[in-house]
Amino acid sequence: MDAACDHVPARAPTRPRTPPVTTYRDPAAPLDARVHDLLARMTLREKVGQLNQRMYGWDAYRRTPGGGFELTGALRAETERFAGLGALYGLQRADAWSGVAHGSGPGAEDAATLADLVQRHVVESSRLGIPALFVEEVPHGLMALDGTVLPVNLAVGATWDPALYERAAAHAAAELRARGGHVALVSALDIARDPRWGRTEECFGEDPYLAARLTEALVHGMQGAGELFAPDKSPVVLKHFAGQGATVGGRNSAESELGLRELHEIHLPAARAGIRAGAAAVMAAYNEVDGMPCSGNRALLTELLREEWGFEGLVMADGLAVDRLARITGDTVSAGALALNSGVDLSLWDEGFTRLEEAVERGLVKETVLDTAVARVLRLKFRLGLFDRQGTTPTTPPAPTGGKDLSLSLARAAVTLLRNDGTLPVDARVSRIAVLGPQSATTAHQLGDYTAPQAPGTGSSVLDALRRLVPPGVDIRHTRGCALTGDDLSGIPEAVAAAAASDLAVLVLGGSSARTPDTDFAANGAALKAVSEMTCGEGVDLAGLRLGAAQYALLDAVVATGTPTAVVLVQGRPHVVPDTPGALLTAWYPGPWGGEAIAEVVLGLAEPGGRLPVSVPRSAAQLPVYYNHKDTEYGGYVDADAGPLFSFGHGLSYTSFNYGPPSTDGRTVSLDVTNTGERYGRSVVQVYLRRLIATSWPRTLELCAFEGVGLAAGERRTVTLTLDGDLTGLVELRVAESARAALTAVPVRLDLRS
Amino acid sequence: MDAACDHVPARAPTRPRTPPVTTYRDPAAPLDARVHDLLARMTLREKVGQLNQRMYGWDAYRRTPGGGFELTGALRAETERFAGLGALYGLQRADAWSGVAHGSGPGAEDAATLADLVQRHVVESSRLGIPALFVEEVPHGLMALDGTVLPVNLAVGATWDPALYERAAAHAAAELRARGGHVALVSALDIARDPRWGRTEECFGEDPYLAARLTEALVHGMQGAGELFAPDKSPVVLKHFAGQGATVGGRNSAESELGLRELHEIHLPAARAGIRAGAAAVMAAYNEVDGMPCSGNRALLTELLREEWGFEGLVMADGLAVDRLARITGDTVSAGALALNSGVDLSLWDEGFTRLEEAVERGLVKETVLDTAVARVLRLKFRLGLFDRQGTTPTTPPAPTGGKDLSLSLARAAVTLLRNDGTLPVDARVSRIAVLGPQSATTAHQLGDYTAPQAPGTGSSVLDALRRLVPPGVDIRHTRGCALTGDDLSGIPEAVAAAAASDLAVLVLGGSSARTPDTDFAANGAALKAVSEMTCGEGVDLAGLRLGAAQYALLDAVVATGTPTAVVLVQGRPHVVPDTPGALLTAWYPGPWGGEAIAEVVLGLAEPGGRLPVSVPRSAAQLPVYYNHKDTEYGGYVDADAGPLFSFGHGLSYTSFNYGPPSTDGRTVSLDVTNTGERYGRSVVQVYLRRLIATSWPRTLELCAFEGVGLAAGERRTVTLTLDGDLTGLVELRVAESARAALTAVPVRLDLRS
Repeated sequence: MDAACDHVPARAPTRPRTPPVTTYRDPAAPLDARVHDLLARMTLREKVGQLNQRMYGWDAYRRTPGGGFELTGALRAETERFAGLGALYGLQRADAWSGVAHGSGPGAEDAATLADLVQRHVVESSRLGIPALFVEEVPHGLMALDGTVLPVNLAVGATWDPALYERAAAHAAAELRARGGHVALVSALDIARDPRWGRTEECFGEDPYLAARLTEALVHGMQGAGELFAPDKSPVVLKHFAGQGATVGGRNSAESELGLRELHEIHLPAARAGIRAGAAAVMAAYNEVDGMPCSGNRALLTELLREEWGFEGLVMADGLAVDRLARITGDTVSAGALALNSGVDLSLWDEGFTRLEEAVERGLVKETVLDTAVARVLRLKFRLGLFDRQGTTPTTPPAPTGGKDLSLSLARAAVTLLRNDGTLPVDARVSRIAVLGPQSATTAHQLGDYTAPQAPGTGSSVLDALRRLVPPGVDIRHTRGCALTGDDLSGIPEAVAAAAASDLAVLVLGGSSARTPDTDFAANGAALKAVSEMTCGEGVDLAGLRLGAAQYALLDAVVATGTPTAVVLVQGRPHVVPDTPGALLTAWYPGPWGGEAIAEVVLGLAEPGGRLPVSVPRSAAQLPVYYNHKDTEYGGYVDADAGPLFSFGHGLSYTSFNYGPPSTDGRTVSLDVTNTGERYGRSVVQVYLRRLIATSWPRTLELCAFEGVGLAAGERRTVTLTLDGDLTGLVELRVAESARAALTAVPVRLDLRS
Repeated sequence: MDAACDHVPARAPTRPRTPPVTTYRDPAAPLDARVHDLLARMTLREKVGQLNQRMYGWDAYRRTPGGGFELTGALRAETERFAGLGALYGLQRADAWSGVAHGSGPGAEDAATLADLVQRHVVESSRLGIPALFVEEVPHGLMALDGTVLPVNLAVGATWDPALYERAAAHAAAELRARGGHVALVSALDIARDPRWGRTEECFGEDPYLAARLTEALVHGMQGAGELFAPDKSPVVLKHFAGQGATVGGRNSAESELGLRELHEIHLPAARAGIRAGAAAVMAAYNEVDGMPCSGNRALLTELLREEWGFEGLVMADGLAVDRLARITGDTVSAGALALNSGVDLSLWDEGFTRLEEAVERGLVKETVLDTAVARVLRLKFRLGLFDRQGTTPTTPPAPTGGKDLSLSLARAAVTLLRNDGTLPVDARVSRIAVLGPQSATTAHQLGDYTAPQAPGTGSSVLDALRRLVPPGVDIRHTRGCALTGDDLSGIPEAVAAAAASDLAVLVLGGSSARTPDTDFAANGAALKAVSEMTCGEGVDLAGLRLGAAQYALLDAVVATGTPTAVVLVQGRPHVVPDTPGALLTAWYPGPWGGEAIAEVVLGLAEPGGRLPVSVPRSAAQLPVYYNHKDTEYGGYVDADAGPLFSFGHGLSYTSFNYGPPSTDGRTVSLDVTNTGERYGRSVVQVYLRRLIATSWPRTLELCAFEGVGLAAGERRTVTLTLDGDLTGLVELRVAESARAALTAVPVRLDLRS
């Protein structure tokens, strides 16, 4: 050893820096200074507390006999254990799982009071007065009693209308904040590549560009701009990062075999767009990416997300995902250490993160790493202004209005006409309509998963809406015909009789993600089949993509009457449907007022605005069927086509459009669009890209721009679409009304190599 | 710049090294010296010629009226173009595609003469006298007239008997060399992960360890040991490198979304084992790995294969795979350059590699890179001793004998009893047997894809063999009942009558990979359906995994007679079969003598030796179904089980076995195996591994050792299995008769962390 190096001068003694006592409490101080000041004052135990979100919000309170709320011993024990509370999940959550229903949980009128009560206790329990984050599920509207339910994400994808979705997202954030909540958990990043997956309904569709545009709209709508959140804006946790739509067999949270290039091209663009838009947080997904579960995946959560993309927000783990890592590490303490070291900041329900002190003691985690995570949690609290108010009530913004209109607008824009031989819209010759099918007279199954129980009378079924909207003199008769599941055919004769005696049959079929106390978060499998009509939703994966057996029998029997039939599918994934004459619509899960949207479209009061955000397969045997596969010119199976029944982007109108030849200047694509029919209509102009020279095997097509254009009969307009600025290389652009149509559309060559 | 560095001394002038003229012709010279001496003498054009294998061998010759052979103008043009010839593909190949049949192509008696004729011409066309490599398909025996056809690889996988397969492989190599061929193309690396894929039959199964052991046996058997090949040994080109079994949807040569860890854990171990065993060459696969087609994948062909694994052999491209790269690069010259730069040495049929001179001129390829590839081709020619003989005839070894016995032994060992209620083996009470089904009386559909036309009378159908083998007095009646494909039910009543009048029905169902001139290398799809009974093989992918519709009707009708029924499946992939009473066997494609093997098992003259090398799915909707999925404890689909109908490793015996408690010393596992039944039987002892601590998400089980043990009735033997030396970590070992049984087998913990 070099003696000269043996005696390095000790660092010059500095006076212990004593920051002003009030820095972290000073709203005028810079945000970083406040965070670091507070962090410097905290004990290890207090820091660990900030990284935990262990208890369920609904366990934190009870209704008093007088109708108020009281805090539980469980909450007191939790805040005592950590000398505070990092975050509380689901204080407003209402559903079968939480056991919260009308009368027991907080509603629009008293949720803010409850939030204030809890927050006061948390702040008082904390030596340094640190408030908790209140985190809520807002997957398609706030999952709380009386929260406005929006159509599920798959329906939002079908609208191809980011501007409309942005307004709806803003509404949801305002609703959350009006009730004292802070942080919104929103599914936005999962890409629907296998419709067997029960969470397909939570995806914006199969396409990375469409999903990216909608994720961007979501973040803009909910968060607004700026470092500090406005009182009616809420930070978004984008779920799930990353690749959750790619699990094998469409099996929920199973392994993915995804390679990095596929991950980047298909599964990451929505996350990238959301983060560029300023998303405050992402949730690490359950699934693995190339062998490593996301919660323990440093390459993903740190190297990619933070180091490459520069993300400075929070990473939250999915529920119990940290503890699951013990399957790799052997115990929960080391599982917590793996998650923290990989880049998880805030845990959900796990034991592992509650034992991070032990992980520090065992040398599994450096306290500096833990500090970084704590700083991220604190920073979000400062950004929300939580330190700068007492409780929540005084600054809680008023509840927003117009939720129903936004939900209905989205539903209307999502209804997609897949096939039509002239049966729709209903014309003046129709005077008797039979409204049939298990989805025709209920709103319960229109809602999708992650929905709070609805107050009686909320929303409108197809039957309700048709009765209200048909012209005077039109007779409507109804019978359900069969249930959503099972093979009970006993109701079919009555349905056949009704159809035979009518000029039109509207047959509303589909699936359901409606949970009951028996199904909520049940494991997949037999038990679920026995007790419910649930065929979709988290943990409810469907191998065969088939509707209940009786629904097919009902469909065949109604069609066999010869009465023109409009089949409407209310569903959370594309189901397999036979090729029947008449009209075929899908509304996905359109939300409480979805029946109204469907009825309007059936009657021609509204345009069928939707375009498919996913390819509709012919059967489960031909999966996968997404349009943006590699350009291998595969010829098909010997027993089946490899292509979809209905293509991504497909959706008919009640009018027709003509697209003029497109031109491009390299940054935009322009063309004339003419409504060549006899009524108003909305065309969704879609620009697809085909790479002629590439750095890897190219896809057949890639969506790269789209725009919805409403045109009166005969109207012509020049539409100009902006191309993604990252586009490079020698490419062809093809403008068309669907991916399938783009295959044969006239190409425009564009050389962006220079 | 440092002036001192500005004037480095020029290298001392050396005299141009003039190697002795005869070095490359000197058999006593070191191999490297011969290669480099020859290379130094070659022109760029000559070098490019060595990298090409452009023409089909069957275009190189014609039969003369006198029964001899004459060379074609096409061959002369080819050798003139390149001043020689690198390699010639398929000189002996006979099938519908090549149009070579008995009477037109070379057979056992004159193939060597043809090879000699062609080789003399090649050597004479070459300024430096460089001979060509004669490359032949030897996927399951030599694909030439009168070549010995072995059971397909999937059947070989079912034997779990590497030693037997090694002997069969040695036979195939000797047969190839006896006919003047040199290099054997053998499918060995593809892992069967999706049974929809028509090349499933070419895989050793779904498991990397089983495949690795068989690939190792293949290389040892065909190549032997040592740098120079013995006259009866042939270098093997292992097909396909890599990940071809992982294409999406089981679609032939479509994209794979495979991540690197999955690639390494599942799809590369067989290649690694084959290369460790000394394989002379690999063929780059058609498919992409993470976006890059294998032929243009430098990470795979150079960084992994050569730099990490130290492989020094040859990389051949698959047919026209180099030209396909033009979809990425824009033209075939740059496609050739990409392939060469990525690590392809020898092309197959492409234009791209014929234009490598242009690629050098355009600066796309350095001549040193090209030299390296040429050196690899030349090296293989030297290793084969091709420079050290005149023509082939004088040193051609005699044709080996015993091919039928080896083929039959493999077939017998592959027949797998999946279900048995006592129907099999046939006992003395059975005096009338109905032999039914479209696979019962033909050998044509027992053979699999990549098979030369068979001489009339070759092999034995199930019907033939049963007639020959049943005890005197047993009456056999036969009718086919239906065809392999289609829904013609007209033959079923006769089959039902035969079954009803019998004590036992043997119902032989299945698929077919038999090509006709109309189907050979046809694209997938409708045309194929119209003209043939082909349901499997290259390019023949089957979405629904279903047998022809009439076969199910036949099965139902025969079972409904109440006559005990043994269903035998002759197939190239697992098909979906209903759960019927009686017995169920699969023989895969067992080769020409497969009918004999099946009959022996049915009659109890042989043990059902096979164990499943793939999981048998319940339906296509639940794919994938391999046993070695990640340990996610997935609960199943709401409408279907996620697990297989029959597990990997499953196969019943006519006797029963008891496994004593296993013990391990860390290098081996030992246990007592007892035949507890009343007749001889063979148990395949399977050791599965379960990782308790891991570096990524662990699989539920991983096969890590196996051994077949034949035991007489009542016999007990201690079996000791050697564990893979690379095994590390904290693991559990479970010894069982199948993967499913291993799930509940008593675990033995093993700590290999120190």
